[in-house]
Amino acid sequence: MRAVAVIGIGKTRFGAFAGRGLRSLAVEAVDKSLQDAHLKPEQVEAFYLGNFAGPSFVGQNHLAPYIATGAGIRGVPATRIEAACASSGAAFFHAWSAVAAGIYDLVVVAGVEKMTSQTTPKVTEILAGAGDVEAEIRVGSTFPSLFAMIANRHMYQYGTTREQLAAVAVKNHANGALNPYAHMRKVISIEQALHSKMVAEPLTLYDCSLVSDGAAAVVICPLERAGEFTSKPVRVLGVAQTSDWVALDEKPDITTFDAVRKAGEQAYRMAGVTAADIEFAEVHDCFTIAEIIAVEDLGFVAKGEGGPWEASGAADRTGAKPVNASGGLKSKGHPVGATGTGQICEVVLQVRGEAGANQLERHSLGLAQNLGGSGATSVVTILGAA
Amino acid sequence: MRAVAVIGIGKTRFGAFAGRGLRSLAVEAVDKSLQDAHLKPEQVEAFYLGNFAGPSFVGQNHLAPYIATGAGIRGVPATRIEAACASSGAAFFHAWSAVAAGIYDLVVVAGVEKMTSQTTPKVTEILAGAGDVEAEIRVGSTFPSLFAMIANRHMYQYGTTREQLAAVAVKNHANGALNPYAHMRKVISIEQALHSKMVAEPLTLYDCSLVSDGAAAVVICPLERAGEFTSKPVRVLGVAQTSDWVALDEKPDITTFDAVRKAGEQAYRMAGVTAADIEFAEVHDCFTIAEIIAVEDLGFVAKGEGGPWEASGAADRTGAKPVNASGGLKSKGHPVGATGTGQICEVVLQVRGEAGANQLERHSLGLAQNLGGSGATSVVTILGAA
Repeated sequence: MRAVAVIGIGKTRFGAFAGRGLRSLAVEAVDKSLQDAHLKPEQVEAFYLGNFAGPSFVGQNHLAPYIATGAGIRGVPATRIEAACASSGAAFFHAWSAVAAGIYDLVVVAGVEKMTSQTTPKVTEILAGAGDVEAEIRVGSTFPSLFAMIANRHMYQYGTTREQLAAVAVKNHANGALNPYAHMRKVISIEQALHSKMVAEPLTLYDCSLVSDGAAAVVICPLERAGEFTSKPVRVLGVAQTSDWVALDEKPDITTFDAVRKAGEQAYRMAGVTAADIEFAEVHDCFTIAEIIAVEDLGFVAKGEGGPWEASGAADRTGAKPVNASGGLKSKGHPVGATGTGQICEVVLQVRGEAGANQLERHSLGLAQNLGGSGATSVVTILGAA
Repeated sequence: MRAVAVIGIGKTRFGAFAGRGLRSLAVEAVDKSLQDAHLKPEQVEAFYLGNFAGPSFVGQNHLAPYIATGAGIRGVPATRIEAACASSGAAFFHAWSAVAAGIYDLVVVAGVEKMTSQTTPKVTEILAGAGDVEAEIRVGSTFPSLFAMIANRHMYQYGTTREQLAAVAVKNHANGALNPYAHMRKVISIEQALHSKMVAEPLTLYDCSLVSDGAAAVVICPLERAGEFTSKPVRVLGVAQTSDWVALDEKPDITTFDAVRKAGEQAYRMAGVTAADIEFAEVHDCFTIAEIIAVEDLGFVAKGEGGPWEASGAADRTGAKPVNASGGLKSKGHPVGATGTGQICEVVLQVRGEAGANQLERHSLGLAQNLGGSGATSVVTILGAA
């Protein structure tokens, strides 16, 4: 397998954009990523798109050629990958595989979602399609309620507290406030988080990520060719995609995601590093409890210690191992299909030292963790200085 | 790149199955393909799923891990690919790429669609998502009307007749009547085809393919390992996926699909064969005109000669180059996401000499052509005796 580098990134701001269509958002991100890589669309050899529910949100399916042609990419394989909230993480994994294996040299991976054209009940229903509809949703669950069950069990089993959940929200909002591309640039207090509207006990409004529109794109090529396109390549050191049961009730323990543990182990092995070596991470905080479980499953802390670790400030921008310095899904926003490539863009910005007000002190080895549903798909990517 | 072989196939009957769910159909096909390859689910290293619109048809998204776990495949990358009616053709292309490049050895590719739970207007609307919704559908087009425009232009430009379109329908129905897995096993006459209900001038009911439920799966591995699993491996000689504009009005000539021409050329080059060498083919006859254009774009006949060639009997089971000996989408059925892998199953059956009443005399080199939308995605696969 060949070493692979990210040579370009591009993203839209995440937010609620009444006047923007799905294709317009995606094409903006792809255009920016090509410019960043000093590449023309005609040079692109394959296009991968992560999108969760374009057909349900905006009625448009067959999205890969639809977006590729809009960005001037025509003729080559253009493929949409759907893996719930891990759609563009999975698209990145497959694009990486193809470049690493020598099938293509110059590949664009984009992610996009346009969610705000729908009313809240409809959004909740569409998102529920990432769960086991027959076993979970038709009997009354929604994603907030599934993660509420997970949170309750984590609190019961490990003594995790609502204050620890709220600490994750406060940290990510503080980070997002500094990110000009974030959806909600709003600092919140522990009290605000604890006393905001209850969504699904114990998760309040501020424990939940946002419903956003947005797109993010990444250009990759073999590391040996990266110098032709950029002076600041970022190396893909490890990447893995794994799968598990969709329904929570099939899992022996809902306080851990087996797919995340496995993807982490595989990515660490490929990169030749351990969890302790990772300097910073973007993890999938669709709910605050998800970030606490992620830092445990990725081995940043022992099982059950995620809550106290987060509350201690260790994951702050100035902490020992910053998590979601971008603001995460919580504050930066969660346009589902764009989240995976969005995380990779954030890690690349940090490694390049271009993260502006969010720039971290130690930034040479970062990790992105993208989760689909309640753990049925997981993608972990480790990126570092080339 | 390593040579790749198909070592197992499995399919459900195509039809309208009120009592069957999407997962049940897909799992049946995967189970059968694994049995055919003498493989246990735990041995599978990656799972690819082609599905067009599960979320819209049955409300379930995140389908790859949902189906993989149902078939006993867990932990490994499980990825859904959506490329309209070419979804499982594209899934096969990506699975082939990964095995050819040495990423995995044992891979399952499945395709599935469950369409009959919806009423006809809703099915038409969901299928329309494969077109450019803003440019084509919201101004009144449906897929029958898009292909009617294509047919009208082909008739105007090349003198193609309604009788020639009907000849395709009559042939494919005669073939499907012999296929125990076909949805509609009904022989029809030229008169029936010509005088059936008008759907979109000049396309009558019998010019249109069927709305079906069904699934089909294929197991592939490196050719050098095929002998461990089967005594009848079928070699993947060439395969290519291409893309083009989604909207018809972006195309300079709607009587030809540029993506099909390119995919055919690439697949022939990879296989080291010409169109003349192909002994038989399964082509994407979503409408009768699509088969006529396919045999032209694939180079079986010169541009404009598809109609007379079909009417001459050359594409019959006993003709010079049989096309859709299985009955095609027209009579075997068109469960959208299952069509690509379904075609590959049919070619494999022929190459193995196991096609029963549909078995062709010359069957050592076959081609499958899978089309997405009105030509925005194309996958061409060439298979032959190992």
